Amino acid sequence: MNTQAPVTVHGFSPSGNCHKVRLLLEHLGRPFRWIETRSDQGATHTPDFLALNPNGKVPVLVRDDGAVLTESNAMLCWLADGTQYLPADAWARAQALSWMFFEQYSHEPFVAVARFIAGWTPLDSPRRADLPRLRERSHGALAVMERHLSTHAWFTGERYGVADIALFAYTDVAPHGGVSLEPYPAIRAWLGRVRATPGFVEMVGLDAEAAERVARTA
Amino acid sequence: MNTQAPVTVHGFSPSGNCHKVRLLLEHLGRPFRWIETRSDQGATHTPDFLALNPNGKVPVLVRDDGAVLTESNAMLCWLADGTQYLPADAWARAQALSWMFFEQYSHEPFVAVARFIAGWTPLDSPRRADLPRLRERSHGALAVMERHLSTHAWFTGERYGVADIALFAYTDVAPHGGVSLEPYPAIRAWLGRVRATPGFVEMVGLDAEAAERVARTA
Repeated sequence: MNTQAPVTVHGFSPSGNCHKVRLLLEHLGRPFRWIETRSDQGATHTPDFLALNPNGKVPVLVRDDGAVLTESNAMLCWLADGTQYLPADAWARAQALSWMFFEQYSHEPFVAVARFIAGWTPLDSPRRADLPRLRERSHGALAVMERHLSTHAWFTGERYGVADIALFAYTDVAPHGGVSLEPYPAIRAWLGRVRATPGFVEMVGLDAEAAERVARTA
Repeated sequence: MNTQAPVTVHGFSPSGNCHKVRLLLEHLGRPFRWIETRSDQGATHTPDFLALNPNGKVPVLVRDDGAVLTESNAMLCWLADGTQYLPADAWARAQALSWMFFEQYSHEPFVAVARFIAGWTPLDSPRRADLPRLRERSHGALAVMERHLSTHAWFTGERYGVADIALFAYTDVAPHGGVSLEPYPAIRAWLGRVRATPGFVEMVGLDAEAAERVARTA
């Protein structure tokens, strides 16, 4: 069981993986300190940061005793343990985990990467050649979600929780990467249900530079 | 808590993701039925299979009441729940989950995909152009593991468990993809410790066709 001691999160606010952790902390009303870490400007590859996470990624969570946890979805499970956001039943918990592994393997590498390329790489970046393939794979993931939501209200068993938080983060901003949510009425209704949960906070909007790039991305 | 009722696993035996589940079932001495599913020959994209897992991937676990679980690492957590293979402490469990998300995001997409391309695509496949990049990223993941193992015996807290099983599967066969383990003495020692655990079973070897392709891959 985790305690209610304050935690520190090293995160980049426009990153969905980082926003997941902030969103759950806000739902829980748990005190936290946020250290803004510009992963888009190399801040996750300094010697100090690599000492914290040798894998060079945000978010990183640090407990008040200095113990470190990496991987956003592992943080969600730890923070939610013993709360309504993580099912107590082992089978329901496994289903939530299944969606969280789906998110990291079959969703984020396409939906989040398309958004990153659109918003954070130069307009002449050779990585932009990947966008059509990334968008196609993104639609594959969204179709799997749409199908689930045609018969279920949530991804975390009977109620809103960790798997919904994990999937909300990048699904909600998929259009930044040129991935329209228009074909997915069940997903759009679910995004609205997530927004109506107690303690919900929006991710920060794109800054002017990222917004300009997104607008100019075909 | 899961019960000891038999489960059915739809899996492709040379797949590391599938072998993970078989390995834990053998450790647990839990009865299971294995349905060989040739994902390399399209068996995961038939209408029947997609009805089981709309994401079109093995392994798929089916309980004797018909309930379905996807995602290999979620299966490991469910099967291990309440056993020595999953830590009872929430922080230790979160650390194990962190390594399992690392495996699916920062390890498998490089180590497993390099192996798949080497063993299961034609020698003139255009995908082979990806091998240098995949190998470079594989070495990045292995370096993170090596660093952890320089001060820890296992990835699942104080003892062998789910995160070790998840990481063992593709690390052990990384050389099939042209990713040498020679630079990683701590990883090689850990592979040996995994092999010495009670109930350990080897993954099936490559068939003649895959072995021939691997041998002819530069």
